[in-house]
Amino acid sequence: MHQNFNFIIEILGTISFAMSGSFAAMQKRLDPFGVLIIAFVTAVGGGTVRDLLLDVPVFWMHDMVMCSVIFATCLFAMIFKSVEKKFRVTLSIFDSLGLGLFTIVGIQKGLSAELHPVICLTLGTITGCFGGIIRDILLNRIPLIFRKEIYATACIVGGGVFLLLVKLTSFSYGFVQISTIIIIVAIRTLALKFQWQIPKFYGTDQNSEM
Amino acid sequence: MHQNFNFIIEILGTISFAMSGSFAAMQKRLDPFGVLIIAFVTAVGGGTVRDLLLDVPVFWMHDMVMCSVIFATCLFAMIFKSVEKKFRVTLSIFDSLGLGLFTIVGIQKGLSAELHPVICLTLGTITGCFGGIIRDILLNRIPLIFRKEIYATACIVGGGVFLLLVKLTSFSYGFVQISTIIIIVAIRTLALKFQWQIPKFYGTDQNSEM
Amino acid sequence: MHQNFNFIIEILGTISFAMSGSFAAMQKRLDPFGVLIIAFVTAVGGGTVRDLLLDVPVFWMHDMVMCSVIFATCLFAMIFKSVEKKFRVTLSIFDSLGLGLFTIVGIQKGLSAELHPVICLTLGTITGCFGGIIRDILLNRIPLIFRKEIYATACIVGGGVFLLLVKLTSFSYGFVQISTIIIIVAIRTLALKFQWQIPKFYGTDQNSEM
Repeated sequence: MHQNFNFIIEILGTISFAMSGSFAAMQKRLDPFGVLIIAFVTAVGGGTVRDLLLDVPVFWMHDMVMCSVIFATCLFAMIFKSVEKKFRVTLSIFDSLGLGLFTIVGIQKGLSAELHPVICLTLGTITGCFGGIIRDILLNRIPLIFRKEIYATACIVGGGVFLLLVKLTSFSYGFVQISTIIIIVAIRTLALKFQWQIPKFYGTDQNSEM
Repeated sequence: MHQNFNFIIEILGTISFAMSGSFAAMQKRLDPFGVLIIAFVTAVGGGTVRDLLLDVPVFWMHDMVMCSVIFATCLFAMIFKSVEKKFRVTLSIFDSLGLGLFTIVGIQKGLSAELHPVICLTLGTITGCFGGIIRDILLNRIPLIFRKEIYATACIVGGGVFLLLVKLTSFSYGFVQISTIIIIVAIRTLALKFQWQIPKFYGTDQNSEM
Repeated sequence: MHQNFNFIIEILGTISFAMSGSFAAMQKRLDPFGVLIIAFVTAVGGGTVRDLLLDVPVFWMHDMVMCSVIFATCLFAMIFKSVEKKFRVTLSIFDSLGLGLFTIVGIQKGLSAELHPVICLTLGTITGCFGGIIRDILLNRIPLIFRKEIYATACIVGGGVFLLLVKLTSFSYGFVQISTIIIIVAIRTLALKFQWQIPKFYGTDQNSEM
């Protein structure tokens, strides 16, 4: 059952990022095959880099489930979008969901490989953030992660809470997973709604901008 | 002989992409070493990602042939360009050729690893498209693949035809390879010439552009 | 002692690139977690690609030293920057140092794997240049390597001198390493100061700019 629950989280994360990739690509007016490629790269990008770093088989290479899920999500997004017109909100909801879900998956894979908690947190951040970064670079947008919104912070704080709860408490694993995902999505959503910003304690120097 | 034919296709694809990389880099006025780096990355980028995903030795690491071919092509392109001035057409011809040749190489490597046809098609698309995407990102151009022209479509349609012919017909392998390459190059060239565009059945929403 | 010397070079390169990444990220007004991510990617990017290509364990995955060094450097850079304001010069000094140090590390790892000298030089270039390229792409800056300054050239020329000295002379290894690093940093610094440019013997064709 524990295994099944992890699998469901991975599927949900894949659907979320395939959605966010599809919407972002349609917003840039790509043709359907271009949309499919962006959806695919957004959904598998982070996990692929993680698996390459861990030197384990890349998760989507020997498994048609992920490819089918991405294809179906992408098709659904394209059909749905001929009705619905508001890209921006939908995109940011699915992006936040994918961020929360994939951060957990990445940390778990690091823990399974018995790596140091800090490395696990790094892997979680990579799994959560890289798909979206690659999507934004390919679409020539300023990556979400580098705008003023709280993004990487949500991912690192949520991942840190997850590790603390797993290591120090006896809560059930499923409860810890769901709590962490809610924390990450909540931080992102509140940050967007109230335009939170992290104070920068270093000076900035616009004149030297190259 | 079958093996030799595959090798020739790989060499021709490498030359085509090294050419397209060199031309694109010279157009951006890079110095000769910068041109060499872009030529190298364009020519080996897609195949490198494919080999990392397959967890097989990266094809150019233990083999000086590819490096020598890229170096010679790059040198030839630089000398040739002091005479010839029309970058645009040359660039798109070599890019289309490389796309067709490398898509086939990628699918074949997937088939050798006994992967599912859809994964093979994905590997073909990665091998064909990634070198050019990396080239365009490094040169700060909007990737060819995401402009209005039919690009990814040519690659996916051609790859699909290749898989169907290999699986369902008894045509000789060489014939199937050459036909597929001709199909991909033809789709690209005609699309460019007549400015074909794939209909987008989803609405677009320019106002929400972030 | 030989081993220790290599380790010191790797640490110094990591500090240099973590510094250059932190400064570049602060210049773009990222929040502290964003600065940390850019510092990390700049410092480990080149070495990670090299280790994936060599199919050896990625150097920072099983070792907390690098992560700690990067974290400490990033923190120091942020605190230091609330005092100091001149990003541009600091950034280019640390970037040149990192370039020199990491080029040597990459070539050495290639030599240990008994690869052809040209492949070793390629690995050195990748180790030295990729971290900075990824940093610049993520920050949406034109990569340093593709501006008019002599960058890739410093790396390739320095690497070539290193290989020649190692293969053909009997100088001590440490002497060769230090000389090469000085050569690379000197070429970069002089090129910046006197605005050196490599002659381009091919014509340029601005009108066809796409």
